[in-house]
Amino acid sequence: MSNKVKPRTLAGTLELLPNDQILFNEMVDKIRKAYESFGFLPLDTPIIELSEILLAKAGGETEKQIYRFDKGDNDLSLRFDLTVPFAKYVAKNQNELAFPFKRYQIGKVYRGERPQKCRFREFYQCDVDVIADQLDIIHDAEMVNVIYEVFKSLDLAKFTICINNRKVLNGLFEDLEISNQKVEVMRIIDKIDKIGEAAMREELAKLEIVESKIDKICEFILITGSTSEKIEKLKLIQIKNKTFNEGLTELEKIAKYVKQFEIPEENFRIDLKIARGLDYYTGTVYETFFDEYRNLGSVCSGGRYDNLTEYYTERNFQGVGISIGLTRLFSQLKEMELLKENAVSIAKVLVIPMDENCSGFALKIAKFLRQNNVNTETYSNFHKDMKAKLKYADKLNIPYVCIIGEEEMQQDVVMLKNMNEKTQEKVKLEEILQNIR
Amino acid sequence: MSNKVKPRTLAGTLELLPNDQILFNEMVDKIRKAYESFGFLPLDTPIIELSEILLAKAGGETEKQIYRFDKGDNDLSLRFDLTVPFAKYVAKNQNELAFPFKRYQIGKVYRGERPQKCRFREFYQCDVDVIADQLDIIHDAEMVNVIYEVFKSLDLAKFTICINNRKVLNGLFEDLEISNQKVEVMRIIDKIDKIGEAAMREELAKLEIVESKIDKICEFILITGSTSEKIEKLKLIQIKNKTFNEGLTELEKIAKYVKQFEIPEENFRIDLKIARGLDYYTGTVYETFFDEYRNLGSVCSGGRYDNLTEYYTERNFQGVGISIGLTRLFSQLKEMELLKENAVSIAKVLVIPMDENCSGFALKIAKFLRQNNVNTETYSNFHKDMKAKLKYADKLNIPYVCIIGEEEMQQDVVMLKNMNEKTQEKVKLEEILQNIR
Repeated sequence: MSNKVKPRTLAGTLELLPNDQILFNEMVDKIRKAYESFGFLPLDTPIIELSEILLAKAGGETEKQIYRFDKGDNDLSLRFDLTVPFAKYVAKNQNELAFPFKRYQIGKVYRGERPQKCRFREFYQCDVDVIADQLDIIHDAEMVNVIYEVFKSLDLAKFTICINNRKVLNGLFEDLEISNQKVEVMRIIDKIDKIGEAAMREELAKLEIVESKIDKICEFILITGSTSEKIEKLKLIQIKNKTFNEGLTELEKIAKYVKQFEIPEENFRIDLKIARGLDYYTGTVYETFFDEYRNLGSVCSGGRYDNLTEYYTERNFQGVGISIGLTRLFSQLKEMELLKENAVSIAKVLVIPMDENCSGFALKIAKFLRQNNVNTETYSNFHKDMKAKLKYADKLNIPYVCIIGEEEMQQDVVMLKNMNEKTQEKVKLEEILQNIR
Repeated sequence: MSNKVKPRTLAGTLELLPNDQILFNEMVDKIRKAYESFGFLPLDTPIIELSEILLAKAGGETEKQIYRFDKGDNDLSLRFDLTVPFAKYVAKNQNELAFPFKRYQIGKVYRGERPQKCRFREFYQCDVDVIADQLDIIHDAEMVNVIYEVFKSLDLAKFTICINNRKVLNGLFEDLEISNQKVEVMRIIDKIDKIGEAAMREELAKLEIVESKIDKICEFILITGSTSEKIEKLKLIQIKNKTFNEGLTELEKIAKYVKQFEIPEENFRIDLKIARGLDYYTGTVYETFFDEYRNLGSVCSGGRYDNLTEYYTERNFQGVGISIGLTRLFSQLKEMELLKENAVSIAKVLVIPMDENCSGFALKIAKFLRQNNVNTETYSNFHKDMKAKLKYADKLNIPYVCIIGEEEMQQDVVMLKNMNEKTQEKVKLEEILQNIR
């Protein structure tokens, strides 16, 4: 091996074996199908962009993580999310697009992180956004419906879509006159499930927030009940603030539409602790959790933003969108053994001619099956023995094998093996279809 | 606009408007479906790789075109094709994979070219390859079948798949003792259709090739007739060379299998002028042309190679594969106005509630349609007028619109508009499906 390069991939990238790749692609297909069922339009932007474009807004941590390099006269970067390219695209094509512009994009993004378990340098994001000069609040509710349909079709685990509204949070902090401390306060609030109310109160006190205000914060975030009960309690809480009331009205409308969308109660919840880190969200925020695997964190997040395109155009656009970090999700599911690994294959039938003389008949069978939309592979390495050929079908999980020998050719039949049930029978060409369905 | 960044994309990258993106994705879907119908397994390798891996072989022109940069301690490059990552993948996973390993990969690759019309820095390749320690020649014929099925399903233009065999060419040059000049000779031969036989002879004479050898070259490349006639003529030609005969036997076998695959005569041809530039091909080579648009050059090319993985492993693998440069092909078709632009949409139905009060009923209709696998968008920007709403459907080519007003709600019907035929009628919920099919 002295003069060979050791074949390997960069740490922090995901390169799957075929079986896992099939499972991964199935997830992508389901997500795409769900997105398209709502009429979201496909978009595919370049992975390399001018740094000036991608970094129009970025700064701090994001900028440090970016893959940036010069080529010729160009200062280039690899995209670190799909949101900034989307903003650029909308600003660039604003006169060509029909608004509200609803698009999905499924693609790879790049962050030069130190690689660790389930942290990736190259990973897929699956985004949907809708954007317009002005966007009625029902679009925020539709996002809940989109998330619901996606995770229902993925069929991975019980899930809850949690929403909150930034205006409600900001209004609360304005009312308590602690807006300048809201980042720290939110971080502490976020820990209540782990550390409990008493410890949380202590930490808030350390920020020199007076007890009456801490009482109010606790009253707020500990509001319980059904969605409509929560809204009623929020109305009764003594917060007289315009922003708060705007946010509350939005929450109430979304709750109404979510009901119209017939989202089951168990899959939807208002969670007043959710804030989302990204500072461009200005209204609704979303997080999605697997009920039995809360430790995975949110598997689908997003929110509403007021002016995403401000770095590229004077025109104001409102938008709302969500994103699934699919590479991370997939590798978590894989690690937890939640993927049904052995059930998948690309080919449904493997046609094996016993020898070269049978190839003509074998190819005829394969063609017939393909014409009937059955993915069919022919095994044509004639020099291998039958055991090797069947082992191949087994390794690829191909559920049916058609063996073609002289005898079968003369009788105009095939020997059809069901690989799962370990049975076989001679059937005519036109009978294969009903036997494998 | 003084403080705004002008929204734009890097020259040499393709960023499509939604309509074109739908058409592009349709092509990708058809290619993928055709590849999978033969049982090729999906593969998705990282776009960023260690330079040491990607450049194990490369040199000269390729290396200059590579996007290469440092990040942390890593010397990284963007992949410039899908073949090198495939070789690495096979070498890396050789103990996990089932052979023959048949895989397809559809993904972006990067070349730092000076951008010009239909030359891209970021572009899609759609590759299939099959690889094994030893690979019977029928696999070379199967590639012809794959190309045939792909272009039949793409339904773009009449096409011809042309094959040749490197061994036949090398054997000819060996026999004529001009192997050291074969690159120049091939380049001249390649021009015969443009410059004619006489001019070609003159150029060959300038290489100081004697007339008797030039006669032989002309006799060889001017062989005409059907596939079987060409093979018979090649057998009769006076070339006594082992390599030549090996190649000829391979061509003959492929022709036999191509017949078994039932590829129409008009879609397949032996073309003795084809050599392919890439020096790793060692046997069969493929090019595919649109009969009426020869000027586009080959739209699908490939070949057989003896040892693709030699830079990564001692184990020898034989392979054969083909590739479609989809970004280039798409932009050529677009330029030639060969894309049917106005016939596509993601949503088949747009449901428009007249006002907010009708949204519940509208959402019910939309849900019903989605459950019946009809992509359905709801137009919910209530503040817009009906004209704007219908214009939206028009711009997105959505063929059906369901309008829901108070009257429709009371009668439990929808106003169904056929946007292409400019007709409308009131129908019941359960009648919508048959009306739009």
